[in-house]
Amino acid sequence: MKVTLKELAERTGAALRGDADIAITGIATLDRAQAGDLAFLYNRRYRKFLSVTGASAVLLAPADAADCPVPALVMDNPYLGYARAAALLAPKLPVSPGIHPSAHVDAAARVDASASIGPHAILEAGVEIGEQVVIGGSSVIGRDSRIGDHTIVRPGACLYHGVTVGRRCLIHSGAVIGADGFGFARDGTQWVKIPQVGGVHIGDDVEIGANSTIDRGALKDTVIEDGVKIDNLVQIGHNVRIGAQSAIAGCTGIAGSTTLGRRCLIGGAVGIAGHIEICDDVTVLAKSGVHKSIRKPGVYSSGWPVQEARTWHRYLAAIARLARGRGKTGEASE
Amino acid sequence: MKVTLKELAERTGAALRGDADIAITGIATLDRAQAGDLAFLYNRRYRKFLSVTGASAVLLAPADAADCPVPALVMDNPYLGYARAAALLAPKLPVSPGIHPSAHVDAAARVDASASIGPHAILEAGVEIGEQVVIGGSSVIGRDSRIGDHTIVRPGACLYHGVTVGRRCLIHSGAVIGADGFGFARDGTQWVKIPQVGGVHIGDDVEIGANSTIDRGALKDTVIEDGVKIDNLVQIGHNVRIGAQSAIAGCTGIAGSTTLGRRCLIGGAVGIAGHIEICDDVTVLAKSGVHKSIRKPGVYSSGWPVQEARTWHRYLAAIARLARGRGKTGEASE
Amino acid sequence: MKVTLKELAERTGAALRGDADIAITGIATLDRAQAGDLAFLYNRRYRKFLSVTGASAVLLAPADAADCPVPALVMDNPYLGYARAAALLAPKLPVSPGIHPSAHVDAAARVDASASIGPHAILEAGVEIGEQVVIGGSSVIGRDSRIGDHTIVRPGACLYHGVTVGRRCLIHSGAVIGADGFGFARDGTQWVKIPQVGGVHIGDDVEIGANSTIDRGALKDTVIEDGVKIDNLVQIGHNVRIGAQSAIAGCTGIAGSTTLGRRCLIGGAVGIAGHIEICDDVTVLAKSGVHKSIRKPGVYSSGWPVQEARTWHRYLAAIARLARGRGKTGEASE
Repeated sequence: MKVTLKELAERTGAALRGDADIAITGIATLDRAQAGDLAFLYNRRYRKFLSVTGASAVLLAPADAADCPVPALVMDNPYLGYARAAALLAPKLPVSPGIHPSAHVDAAARVDASASIGPHAILEAGVEIGEQVVIGGSSVIGRDSRIGDHTIVRPGACLYHGVTVGRRCLIHSGAVIGADGFGFARDGTQWVKIPQVGGVHIGDDVEIGANSTIDRGALKDTVIEDGVKIDNLVQIGHNVRIGAQSAIAGCTGIAGSTTLGRRCLIGGAVGIAGHIEICDDVTVLAKSGVHKSIRKPGVYSSGWPVQEARTWHRYLAAIARLARGRGKTGEASE
Repeated sequence: MKVTLKELAERTGAALRGDADIAITGIATLDRAQAGDLAFLYNRRYRKFLSVTGASAVLLAPADAADCPVPALVMDNPYLGYARAAALLAPKLPVSPGIHPSAHVDAAARVDASASIGPHAILEAGVEIGEQVVIGGSSVIGRDSRIGDHTIVRPGACLYHGVTVGRRCLIHSGAVIGADGFGFARDGTQWVKIPQVGGVHIGDDVEIGANSTIDRGALKDTVIEDGVKIDNLVQIGHNVRIGAQSAIAGCTGIAGSTTLGRRCLIGGAVGIAGHIEICDDVTVLAKSGVHKSIRKPGVYSSGWPVQEARTWHRYLAAIARLARGRGKTGEASE
Repeated sequence: MKVTLKELAERTGAALRGDADIAITGIATLDRAQAGDLAFLYNRRYRKFLSVTGASAVLLAPADAADCPVPALVMDNPYLGYARAAALLAPKLPVSPGIHPSAHVDAAARVDASASIGPHAILEAGVEIGEQVVIGGSSVIGRDSRIGDHTIVRPGACLYHGVTVGRRCLIHSGAVIGADGFGFARDGTQWVKIPQVGGVHIGDDVEIGANSTIDRGALKDTVIEDGVKIDNLVQIGHNVRIGAQSAIAGCTGIAGSTTLGRRCLIGGAVGIAGHIEICDDVTVLAKSGVHKSIRKPGVYSSGWPVQEARTWHRYLAAIARLARGRGKTGEASE
């Protein structure tokens, strides 16, 4: 891809400073950029490379523009500018429309002619595949599931039956969507399975990371609203609802029947209990545990940062003494 | 599926109150049920919908029966009744016996004529597939592995060689059973792999969640006893034994050579160390860490619930002061 | 496999005591070994079986040799000896060189004649497969990815495009290598994806566990250096570098752009924040959270071991009182 700096200014919404006609063919960090590259600056640690960059142009904030030795794209949020420029400049993987001969597509599935169905993919009866959809090799789309226009399913993802995915979604390899929720009743010492007959409903512009799992609802649908971004190895239990534009980092689990609000930011390796409600605009920091509903926007945490093991053992001992003291004699310092 | 209320009473073990002959065709929550549906009440939060439900009948506890405006199925454990009724009423996915022509079945694999082997499935030499077994598309069953009668393996699951699965199990997509345990010896600064030559033995009525992993033993088998239920993204290390009827929630990991007793309940995102023993009837709450053997039945925890980040930083500071004070001057409050 | 004890002594580097010519055909624990087996002793708990073992020979440390009732292989690190002996004695899975007719291999992929490509595997254009490589059934190797000599990819693993894997690696089923890193810029309340155009570079002798995920870099490569061992369900974010010979246990996550040193040992279910540096020779114990850079080798921890729930609630209450007291009145014990 080759674009002029002028075109990049228009696409990113940045102000152009310098020669509008230079050709840009790639994007790179300040320290690695070469002639033809657009570099960018938003991380302070890279500031030192600005004066010596080999880039043909740099995308940066107004405060840094005066020191830029080459033509510049100037905007308040250069990280957003980077995202927009990279979308234009990043190489695209080639896609061939049509159904690969080795794919298994049920006669009762409907596939738009512009879609690409990879080798060994499986589309069961009743499946509907929209325009420009890409289904990667060895992926499985279960009975009656529907994939909206421009959505990409990477190789080896599994969607069970009755899963609806919106438009412009990206589902990574190994993701499993629509497996049974974890529901059992006790019959003495035996477990009796609760059949999981709901589905999964995924909105538009959702990204689901590699090997993440989203269970189908017990009776109604598990719902992922528009614009939600889910990282790798995330578990979403049955009947959960994730509000629009929320982002969930890797290794996090959300137990069944919980509702997460809109624009929430959930850090990595967070655990969220079942049957609770978290309101809009809540941030939960990494490694935290959420046991109760959160009704007030804000930043929440319960993660303990590592100490040297010797120090940490003093922590463990200190709180054990404190709790014991209180329990037995009431001598704690309150 | 269409059954009479009388039939449902027999199948659930509930007492029938009202017209025994009404036809039930579905199951739904109290607030969403319509004519033809059986609704159920076990969660207090739904109590308010009882008087206005559109259900044709309701399954509930004796204490609620007097307020039920429609015919009722009455039993002490309505959640169990719901499980049993739903098993009868839930729609079943159609299954076609036989081996899909695109499956790769080794000449030395034995497949019962009543089994269903999906598209692109792989059955290696020596595999044995029992009666009514369903092997989903793109699943892999490794050399000499055996799948017991009525077990279902969902699409995209991988069983390595030498894995034995009992009857009526359900293995979800992306589960990997029989990968090498994590064992290495140090040779100076290099690692030398310990070959993992044991297998995996899974009992009857076991459910294994999507993308969960159960490693093969180093020398003997990793064992999952009858009736164990394992949620999504759970890791079970080599040589582990999980006692009958235990249930393990999502994102939990159990390190190698640990034994978990019977009827244990392990919450989500729990970490259990290797080489320890946990006795029968232990409950471990979510996000806890188990570092030592537990020899007494009961409920255990070490999870910290989130606080607002400002409050949480006071927690961190308070225990740091406490541990430091003790370490240096002995002035702590004990 | 049948070898003499003399041969085993040479291969393990152990001193031989007793009949050099006896034939060994298997390896087993002291308590289960039978005639023809080599047993080994490094775990104190098995010491009691030494005098009664049915093994034909035992591999053990000098301190235990005097009590060995059968011929012995004696060395300082018998666990290492066990690894070496098992590598020789463990049964090998049969491998057939060649491309299975059901595999989909792009015309522009290069596969060494000695490699084995399993049923339904997918090799995209530009892929290079080295000598003696084994690609398991249903695995996917994306465009322009390269697999070094003697590397094994188990069934159902997915490598995206532009992934380089070294020699003698072992990649387990369900592993996903090269999925997009989790990078988004905010545009008001919407997320704009940062295209992930880097690759993944994996050195020699690396093992990657089942269902683990290693994301591709945003601009440069994510790097896993030589000899790294990664357990199951581990998440490695984009731009991460893992130093040579480090080992990472199951359920651990490492966020983007973090550098981990050489010979580090990371326990299970650890969370490591993004954009930090951990120096060489750091051990982090299970369930810990690493929020900041670690610049000093040593052992680090922040894991809380479970208590009975009643005791644990006292812990929670004690620290809440302590933090509150300090915050309000300054009466804490510092």
